[in-house]
Amino acid sequence: MNRQWWYVTPPKGKLSTDHFQLREVPVPDLEPGRVLVRHRYLSLMPGNRAWMQRPTYRSVLDPGQVMPGRTLGEVIASDAPGFAPGDVVEGGAGWQDYAVVSPRSLTKRPGGQPQEHLVGLLGTSGLTAYFGFLHVGRPRAGQTVLVSAAAGGIGSIVVQLARISGCRVVGVAGGPEKCAWLRQDVGVDATVDYKAGDLAGQLKTACPQGVDLFFDNTGGPVLEAALDAMKIGGRIVCCGNTAQYDGEAPAAGPKGLPLTLNVKSLTMQGFIVSNYLDRFGEAEANLWGWRQAGQLKPFYHLVEGLEQTPAALVGLLNGANRGMTIVRI
Amino acid sequence: MNRQWWYVTPPKGKLSTDHFQLREVPVPDLEPGRVLVRHRYLSLMPGNRAWMQRPTYRSVLDPGQVMPGRTLGEVIASDAPGFAPGDVVEGGAGWQDYAVVSPRSLTKRPGGQPQEHLVGLLGTSGLTAYFGFLHVGRPRAGQTVLVSAAAGGIGSIVVQLARISGCRVVGVAGGPEKCAWLRQDVGVDATVDYKAGDLAGQLKTACPQGVDLFFDNTGGPVLEAALDAMKIGGRIVCCGNTAQYDGEAPAAGPKGLPLTLNVKSLTMQGFIVSNYLDRFGEAEANLWGWRQAGQLKPFYHLVEGLEQTPAALVGLLNGANRGMTIVRI
Repeated sequence: MNRQWWYVTPPKGKLSTDHFQLREVPVPDLEPGRVLVRHRYLSLMPGNRAWMQRPTYRSVLDPGQVMPGRTLGEVIASDAPGFAPGDVVEGGAGWQDYAVVSPRSLTKRPGGQPQEHLVGLLGTSGLTAYFGFLHVGRPRAGQTVLVSAAAGGIGSIVVQLARISGCRVVGVAGGPEKCAWLRQDVGVDATVDYKAGDLAGQLKTACPQGVDLFFDNTGGPVLEAALDAMKIGGRIVCCGNTAQYDGEAPAAGPKGLPLTLNVKSLTMQGFIVSNYLDRFGEAEANLWGWRQAGQLKPFYHLVEGLEQTPAALVGLLNGANRGMTIVRI
Repeated sequence: MNRQWWYVTPPKGKLSTDHFQLREVPVPDLEPGRVLVRHRYLSLMPGNRAWMQRPTYRSVLDPGQVMPGRTLGEVIASDAPGFAPGDVVEGGAGWQDYAVVSPRSLTKRPGGQPQEHLVGLLGTSGLTAYFGFLHVGRPRAGQTVLVSAAAGGIGSIVVQLARISGCRVVGVAGGPEKCAWLRQDVGVDATVDYKAGDLAGQLKTACPQGVDLFFDNTGGPVLEAALDAMKIGGRIVCCGNTAQYDGEAPAAGPKGLPLTLNVKSLTMQGFIVSNYLDRFGEAEANLWGWRQAGQLKPFYHLVEGLEQTPAALVGLLNGANRGMTIVRI
């Protein structure tokens, strides 16, 4: 049988597991020119929730379909040239055990490494951190870097890339335990607990000289406070807006926009990782090299079993994870 | 006598002439090491109102002082080396006939050209348009450029720089008369009337392929609508936020920030003209060259008499001007 999680009801407020439904259907038959894949891993990201809220880099997600998402799997049968049983492939066929897909939607990956890295450090989270921080952010040694959602999948890589780049790095996270974890295990120089209040005061203490480069995963109140903490001429990388995904589409943006950009000569730049498709090879080589050299440690929040996927996404949106959330099927 | 306009009461809502008071005091005596200047022209800009609202690139303006502002004047007496009676000087001593100032606050200007150009095309408005559009915006021929407050002092120069750069240019202004003026006299390709409603629809009609480069003088609802009209990878130059100056400091920013930057890979970049102090010579030479070649026409909203200055600023904030607002003293 093929277990599938369907997205069935659009959430009005916060997402819950009730917005999904598990269905069991027969394993699909291979079709001409296509590939039958058995999924082994799923990666979950806050953006999955944004797809339900409004058009993003894809059109808004309609209920009544298998929930999409990035997968790593194994080719079971193939009628497409270049794909053979046993091949390890990355794809986007979502929350199900099996899928018959077009070969154009698949990328062959090396079979050797532990496979969680292919959906983690070398998957969307790691590549997003790499291109967003190094190519969009353009850090320079000695700068003060601020990272929001620093304990998350992307943030926990960005803070380490900031250290590799010779920067002083300050992480924003929710609660004293995540903050302690960031300082002790991930290696940030200081933390800001956004649940503890007085963001402005905490930012001033953590970044007494101001912020040169802010890698922003959240938007919302943290971005609003960070605008006031930026140095003249600073840069803000817009990677996500998780503060506003899990509810109705937001009625307004952060106070201080656009005036603070003007008076402080700031730059805010957004990106999506697929802008850099032709450079994924470079990124994978560097990320893996830093890992092998002990400079970069991927942290995985590993969830066991396809049946746990909706609960894992709900948990991710509520800050349950440390590092990249991956479901092993 | 020296007539001075004092800023006496902080406005709660919209600025009126009641927030200023005219005082007559003796012409000040020259002091050691300083320069006595007779003002001839004052330039007014929406930013003058922003100074009263919140800290910007200067600390918030306290009531109980002569209203500051950019001036062009003539040296009457000097105890400073390098300054002699008759010199034409630019300064910031504000809304008064005379001032005794430090030579460091003055810039000597050529005496030959019609002097309104020195506070207009070659003053803060023209230089802001030049560096903001050409250096921050980095236009390329064939691009679609959108300009808000296109009939204003900076906007009316930017739209012409866009044409000189080989761009298609769309101007946003308030009311059918200003829009007609922009199309017929200033030379924009299409206009959007922000007072006529349906900004999204008007932007779609005026920019059917989307906007490559948005030069934003206003922020607020026009920025909010323009975000949705931007092409993937587009650029937004943040020059001002006039939509939010004439009232209380805004409670929120435009909807769609920062998410739209992320999903469309947009860049928003702010600047102030003093970032480019060391290149003013290049800008003046180019601006004057284009004017002499008939490619660039400065439009002046010339107000006669220092006594009209508060009313002229209130008018500017309410859209009374076409082009750069200059007071002849």
